[in-house]
Amino acid sequence: GFARVDTRRQLRCGVTEVVYGEGKTAAQVTAICQALAEEGQPRVLVTRLAAEKARAVQEALPQALYWPDSRLLLTQPLPQPDGKGAIVVVCAGTSDLPVAEEAAITAEALGNKVERVYDAGVAGIHRLFSSADVLAQARVVIAVAGMEGALPSVVAGMVPCPVLAVPTSVGYGASLGGVAALLAMLNSCASGISVVNIDNGFGAAFQASLINHL
Amino acid sequence: GFARVDTRRQLRCGVTEVVYGEGKTAAQVTAICQALAEEGQPRVLVTRLAAEKARAVQEALPQALYWPDSRLLLTQPLPQPDGKGAIVVVCAGTSDLPVAEEAAITAEALGNKVERVYDAGVAGIHRLFSSADVLAQARVVIAVAGMEGALPSVVAGMVPCPVLAVPTSVGYGASLGGVAALLAMLNSCASGISVVNIDNGFGAAFQASLINHL
Amino acid sequence: GFARVDTRRQLRCGVTEVVYGEGKTAAQVTAICQALAEEGQPRVLVTRLAAEKARAVQEALPQALYWPDSRLLLTQPLPQPDGKGAIVVVCAGTSDLPVAEEAAITAEALGNKVERVYDAGVAGIHRLFSSADVLAQARVVIAVAGMEGALPSVVAGMVPCPVLAVPTSVGYGASLGGVAALLAMLNSCASGISVVNIDNGFGAAFQASLINHL
Amino acid sequence: GFARVDTRRQLRCGVTEVVYGEGKTAAQVTAICQALAEEGQPRVLVTRLAAEKARAVQEALPQALYWPDSRLLLTQPLPQPDGKGAIVVVCAGTSDLPVAEEAAITAEALGNKVERVYDAGVAGIHRLFSSADVLAQARVVIAVAGMEGALPSVVAGMVPCPVLAVPTSVGYGASLGGVAALLAMLNSCASGISVVNIDNGFGAAFQASLINHL
Amino acid sequence: GFARVDTRRQLRCGVTEVVYGEGKTAAQVTAICQALAEEGQPRVLVTRLAAEKARAVQEALPQALYWPDSRLLLTQPLPQPDGKGAIVVVCAGTSDLPVAEEAAITAEALGNKVERVYDAGVAGIHRLFSSADVLAQARVVIAVAGMEGALPSVVAGMVPCPVLAVPTSVGYGASLGGVAALLAMLNSCASGISVVNIDNGFGAAFQASLINHL
Amino acid sequence: GFARVDTRRQLRCGVTEVVYGEGKTAAQVTAICQALAEEGQPRVLVTRLAAEKARAVQEALPQALYWPDSRLLLTQPLPQPDGKGAIVVVCAGTSDLPVAEEAAITAEALGNKVERVYDAGVAGIHRLFSSADVLAQARVVIAVAGMEGALPSVVAGMVPCPVLAVPTSVGYGASLGGVAALLAMLNSCASGISVVNIDNGFGAAFQASLINHL
Amino acid sequence: GFARVDTRRQLRCGVTEVVYGEGKTAAQVTAICQALAEEGQPRVLVTRLAAEKARAVQEALPQALYWPDSRLLLTQPLPQPDGKGAIVVVCAGTSDLPVAEEAAITAEALGNKVERVYDAGVAGIHRLFSSADVLAQARVVIAVAGMEGALPSVVAGMVPCPVLAVPTSVGYGASLGGVAALLAMLNSCASGISVVNIDNGFGAAFQASLINHL
Amino acid sequence: GFARVDTRRQLRCGVTEVVYGEGKTAAQVTAICQALAEEGQPRVLVTRLAAEKARAVQEALPQALYWPDSRLLLTQPLPQPDGKGAIVVVCAGTSDLPVAEEAAITAEALGNKVERVYDAGVAGIHRLFSSADVLAQARVVIAVAGMEGALPSVVAGMVPCPVLAVPTSVGYGASLGGVAALLAMLNSCASGISVVNIDNGFGAAFQASLINHL
Ligand SMILES: Nc1ncnc2c1ncn2[C@@H]1O[C@H](COP(=O)(O)O)[C@@H](O)[C@H]1O
Ligand SMILES: Nc1ncnc2c1ncn2[C@@H]1O[C@H](COP(=O)(O)O)[C@@H](O)[C@H]1O
Ligand SMILES: Nc1ncnc2c1ncn2[C@@H]1O[C@H](COP(=O)(O)O)[C@@H](O)[C@H]1O
Ligand SMILES: Nc1ncnc2c1ncn2[C@@H]1O[C@H](COP(=O)(O)O)[C@@H](O)[C@H]1O
Ligand SMILES: [Mg+2]
Ligand SMILES: [Mg+2]
Ligand SMILES: [Mg+2]
Ligand SMILES: [Mg+2]
Ligand SMILES: [Mg+2]
Ligand SMILES: [Mg+2]
Ligand SMILES: [Mg+2]
Ligand SMILES: [Mg+2]
Repeated sequence: GFARVDTRRQLRCGVTEVVYGEGKTAAQVTAICQALAEEGQPRVLVTRLAAEKARAVQEALPQALYWPDSRLLLTQPLPQPDGKGAIVVVCAGTSDLPVAEEAAITAEALGNKVERVYDAGVAGIHRLFSSADVLAQARVVIAVAGMEGALPSVVAGMVPCPVLAVPTSVGYGASLGGVAALLAMLNSCASGISVVNIDNGFGAAFQASLINHL
Repeated sequence: GFARVDTRRQLRCGVTEVVYGEGKTAAQVTAICQALAEEGQPRVLVTRLAAEKARAVQEALPQALYWPDSRLLLTQPLPQPDGKGAIVVVCAGTSDLPVAEEAAITAEALGNKVERVYDAGVAGIHRLFSSADVLAQARVVIAVAGMEGALPSVVAGMVPCPVLAVPTSVGYGASLGGVAALLAMLNSCASGISVVNIDNGFGAAFQASLINHL
Repeated sequence: GFARVDTRRQLRCGVTEVVYGEGKTAAQVTAICQALAEEGQPRVLVTRLAAEKARAVQEALPQALYWPDSRLLLTQPLPQPDGKGAIVVVCAGTSDLPVAEEAAITAEALGNKVERVYDAGVAGIHRLFSSADVLAQARVVIAVAGMEGALPSVVAGMVPCPVLAVPTSVGYGASLGGVAALLAMLNSCASGISVVNIDNGFGAAFQASLINHL
Repeated sequence: GFARVDTRRQLRCGVTEVVYGEGKTAAQVTAICQALAEEGQPRVLVTRLAAEKARAVQEALPQALYWPDSRLLLTQPLPQPDGKGAIVVVCAGTSDLPVAEEAAITAEALGNKVERVYDAGVAGIHRLFSSADVLAQARVVIAVAGMEGALPSVVAGMVPCPVLAVPTSVGYGASLGGVAALLAMLNSCASGISVVNIDNGFGAAFQASLINHL
Repeated sequence: GFARVDTRRQLRCGVTEVVYGEGKTAAQVTAICQALAEEGQPRVLVTRLAAEKARAVQEALPQALYWPDSRLLLTQPLPQPDGKGAIVVVCAGTSDLPVAEEAAITAEALGNKVERVYDAGVAGIHRLFSSADVLAQARVVIAVAGMEGALPSVVAGMVPCPVLAVPTSVGYGASLGGVAALLAMLNSCASGISVVNIDNGFGAAFQASLINHL
Repeated sequence: GFARVDTRRQLRCGVTEVVYGEGKTAAQVTAICQALAEEGQPRVLVTRLAAEKARAVQEALPQALYWPDSRLLLTQPLPQPDGKGAIVVVCAGTSDLPVAEEAAITAEALGNKVERVYDAGVAGIHRLFSSADVLAQARVVIAVAGMEGALPSVVAGMVPCPVLAVPTSVGYGASLGGVAALLAMLNSCASGISVVNIDNGFGAAFQASLINHL
Repeated sequence: GFARVDTRRQLRCGVTEVVYGEGKTAAQVTAICQALAEEGQPRVLVTRLAAEKARAVQEALPQALYWPDSRLLLTQPLPQPDGKGAIVVVCAGTSDLPVAEEAAITAEALGNKVERVYDAGVAGIHRLFSSADVLAQARVVIAVAGMEGALPSVVAGMVPCPVLAVPTSVGYGASLGGVAALLAMLNSCASGISVVNIDNGFGAAFQASLINHL
Repeated sequence: GFARVDTRRQLRCGVTEVVYGEGKTAAQVTAICQALAEEGQPRVLVTRLAAEKARAVQEALPQALYWPDSRLLLTQPLPQPDGKGAIVVVCAGTSDLPVAEEAAITAEALGNKVERVYDAGVAGIHRLFSSADVLAQARVVIAVAGMEGALPSVVAGMVPCPVLAVPTSVGYGASLGGVAALLAMLNSCASGISVVNIDNGFGAAFQASLINHL
């Protein structure tokens, strides 16, 4: 086999198995999913899977769902939420949608109820405030932002729960491929924020799901 | 007043008030703590407070405790833990102790039971494994490491709970003041990790405490 | 002479002459101020002048005022404001005060009425909103912030006038000496912002004064 | 709707509405423009819109103008200038034209009279001086330059009004995608300069227009 | 001749001649190999050779072997191993395979017995431990890893022999094209590690072979 | 105990125990050395130990040797060499001597015969060639260089054995604290080179000693 | 006119006019060349001109010569050398040839006798020494190198004349697009070296020609 | 001897011997100078020598001259100029004086006539133009500038001779210790410029002297 699939991880962590799709062929992805199914792990989430590859996987696994914006594939329908509360995904603008959706759908695939508050950037902060009641019900917030990455700071000042910040590579010039947003989030003057890699909506959702299942 | 103290935050977030000591005089710190006490918020944690300043503050506030390694001051005794479980602080070596202690004592000051697993670097990984049972009881792990910052990845593979990673500025040359460890942690191949700023033991503990009180 | 003082600049630009104090001896600063006075330019602002040097200059020029926080010296009393409106200086926290004051006093020295809104960081955004009426009266806003540098974005969403953003070197670790705040400000998703160098309160005030005298 | 259009911004700021075209489909752009028109905001400026998308938008909105060099689309004819003076756009070379034109047309779309001084790089400084009279009439100057980014410094020494500096990504090797020019402009030894993001002609023009309408 | 082939190197160093294929045409590569063969050096390893070029070279040199994953071409069959022990190549995941194979095949082409331990990342460290006996037999280990680059640290703690660390460009965002892994490896807290350039499987194998032939 | 001393490492790796002195007090260092002695490991090498600390340690351990240039302390006399050949340490200039000596003495402390070729920079390459016979006898070469870091490339072209490259922080301006030399060494066009951290003479010597004892 | 051609420069500097071809259309290049010819400046060198554009220019200007490797076009035959001595262009490997040829042909186009010493990298330094007599006759040396950029240091130690160093973007990984070579050259321990931008063979040749015509 | 003094360099290059003072003790410097004198090379220039060390050297070598601003020591009086023309050193401001003087005195020590044009920054470009006649007589210009580093570009547009650019570390914040000026100079749009390391006045003067003696 080209990859020792780690079937013990689900037992250890109690979650849907995740496969990193980037750099794997459709045949490899299909084989991994089938191997997992045979070992009693039929629900697999594949991240960063290009649309053409997804089509090929779906031919072999007709039940599989695919979300083109977030490039996620799930081999089975979304599960019933079994987390303790809601995960709210907030994002700053249209361009951040793919990463926000990667976070939102991953969280759903891992068994969480998800609320979305999109297009709520800090430059028009009244838009964020008009969603204050949704934010107030969050057990965890995932705040996704590119450019200056200020959204998590403002959100963390509004909510008493943990905020997971996801910088995106949206921007140009001095955004340095998302590094500007990443640095801003790491330096937030607000407490209760931690940060994942640029464009890593998956990582934030995984962590949020662990917290929401505590 | 030189600073509008935000007395609403405690109500909002349910935590001990925190003051950032760096760049404030002892007189400023004392005055802020007294103002908070008058407004019914007697427990204040002061971070990054130099030893000489702490001595001056302690003269005005004789009950205050000071931990020189982590440069933390608390105006009242540590509270009884009221969090749901234990926070485990893991660290890689002697040099990372000040940051690990900043995390551990902050977590205690915010009402958490804390377990310490120190000097458990990845180059001698058997030392980490011999603490596996302590790790297994964690509700949240704070993993502190400088140099190559590999500890959180290994720990996250061992525990099913969220891991908060704290890079430290320990190292020289290509450690770039902690940037090497920071980048490593952001790029962890393990799931369930989020990251705070370099040397920000406080920030990790604050987030961990929010999670532990959910 | 060790420096060809540019006496034409005041005529060209209609402003108080400015001398960069860093790296000049007290004797050099005194001599430059005296030479300017002889050429009919008695009001000179000296920036980044250390306290000991300032004392020596004040012995030779007893009328001179010195502000230790912002390290500014002015050889004559502050002038009457002759700008068209008010310049509002907003800042995010106690640690940013020296830079904010460099901006505020420079603006006053260049003939502007200045309003200060300090300690109004984005993590407690209600504090900023409670100063909305002061902000609304600004002809230009100078927004000073370190760490994640999010303040100018939020402010620019609240006011219809130009915002000059000043990143500060306040922070540690991934703040990279102010580079994080600088990048954030350059990438602001809000319109109507331009940026000056890290800690350059003087530069923002100079530009604000030019705008306020148009 | 995929985007909460912020119809209050025009009321707040008194300007043409602006849509960031990058990363939006032609259908999204068209729908946003139509929604704005229905809400009484028929003049919309779309920035960074690729030529093919523009053609599709123009089919739905036949009145719309498109400038391929600067990738700007305006849903209605340019307005009559209502600013107080002229904005002069200076640039250093043929390669900087797209950014300079983004600034110039944006300024016109926001109601400003614009003068262009192009191909006036600092290496042949006589070319800049032969346009001294045009520069002298500016209320604001926008100085656009790539490579070493020296133009704003020289221009700011010639004019008494604010200079907004736009670094461009023109260059190769150590230009680091415009970072060299950006750093140069932030470090200008001339007073009266503030800076926007690399290639952000739009941002400079927006702030220039705010200043020109004060 | 477009290149002075250095026929003395083999004599000096006792190894198969190596040609860097990137940036050379198929015709150039073929000519160099033929020139070497005429000078008594028939075994040539060509690195970083694109598949199309390899096909063209193989038409002229039908004996040549080509490995598409690692983009290596060898003009003759692999030699019999003549090194003193085994070189073990360890790698962290599927995506690192091309670099790991570049190392493994290069080592074989230079006369070494090679053992492969693949998909043994630190986040599932039990997978590494289950190969402990293979690792224990190594005379040199080559540890290949992208993302956080932690594998060499863990491996070096397990084996008493030299570890050559190869960072790969696998990752996204803050992996900065492999720089994060590179920095991590340079800062390893484990002793007995030295590092080669990002994706330089060849370089690690060359040095490992020198060591294995001492 | 403040540090779990890893007494198994010597058994595993067969080497003198090493303690990292930076950031440890003299008392801590002394205690660690005594604990190791009690466990049957009397020879301990302490690296990066400041002179004042060394004096204090020597009072408790009178047999200990200290080399002020390289800041190394050894609790017992240098051992008899038991390596297979000689390690040659080459360096480019007087300023690189402390790092070169850290490498040379560490190698001796780990049981190796060491030859020194100092002040042999590439700008006067005849000086290097006049030591060609010493280089020719090396089993491993450690090449230490700051500034442009070119020495390892030239040396590796002259010798058939592995070269371990140590960049130093010697230089100013664009040397970026040794990063320039580090990058140069990682990009060497010569084969047979691997690299350790900036100023890490210890690390190169440890690796060289492993190789020399194979 | 889209570009104010600077016809005074030739008079000022006495050289062939140079046009930067990147980012200009074939029509623009042709028009500039024709305008220059009409103003009595028929010899124009166009740099960084893509092959397709060159073909179009050559249709309008049939006398024009084009060198595809270095992407240079010259509207007239190469002139007779009128410089005082020879310019020697040294380069480290096949991949650096395009930049070396840009330097060599530019120098010839500006009226210099040029000697080429190619494929003389520092890892096989005997190849450089076998060209010592050619180097000894240079009035200026242009040393072109990518990767570790060590060649200029070694060359400058061999010749008594000025060395102009050209870093190239040849390399991968930690070569950072030529920044590694650039930094190495700026930090050379050899005297008599100055440096131009990455891949700027033109710039080195222009400076060399100025020196050779003094 | 602690340093193999390269007595052949003077013969090879015909220049005063130069010793890099940084990191050498006064005793080492004195011994080197005496050794050189004994080998018939009595004129030695020592760079970057701290004032206290210089005093100690001057006690042993009473003829030695020392310039505290530029930290240069020369063991004998300045020689008669024997270069072909004048070297003009231009600089942008008071703070750049130490580097400019390092260049100027080095050039004089190597046998050149030097003209100084100081405090001629680009923000007041008329000051540069009023020295046009001095510049016109230069055989080589050394242009020294910190902050935005624009001076060499403007100067190179005014003179037909080679310009050697020296970035300085003068500035703060985004000047990044001189990197901003360095990048600006490497990207100059003017032809005829080459660059040396940050603050390397010596290096520019050495190269200028080689050119002036051709
Ligand atoms: N988009 C992603 N970003 C970061 N890590 C991921 C992503 N998707 C999956 N992973 C991690 O990669 C692991 C699977 O890697 P692989 O075995 O290569 O498919 C999963 O267990 C996740 O921890
Ligand atoms: N703190 C400052 N930061 C940046 N530029 C400054 C500062 N203070 C003064 N300047 C500029 O420096 C010029 C004076 O420099 P100098 O002639 O060296 O005193 C003034 O005209 C200002 O433009
Ligand atoms: N100068 C040094 N640079 C890098 N690593 C070192 C150095 N000195 C010691 N070490 C490593 O640090 C370990 C000891 O760390 P500690 O337990 O903190 O004393 C040793 O086993 C070495 O692997
Ligand atoms: N390849 C090149 N790299 C850097 N500068 C160049 C290059 N080619 C031409 N130049 C410069 O660019 C100027 C012409 O620019 P332009 O007027 O835009 O064609 C010439 O005078 C040269 O100084
Ligand atoms: Mg909060
Ligand atoms: Mg886990
Ligand atoms: Mg606004
Ligand atoms: Mg001005
Ligand atoms: Mg080991
Ligand atoms: Mg070799
Ligand atoms: Mg020389
Ligand atoms: Mg010129």
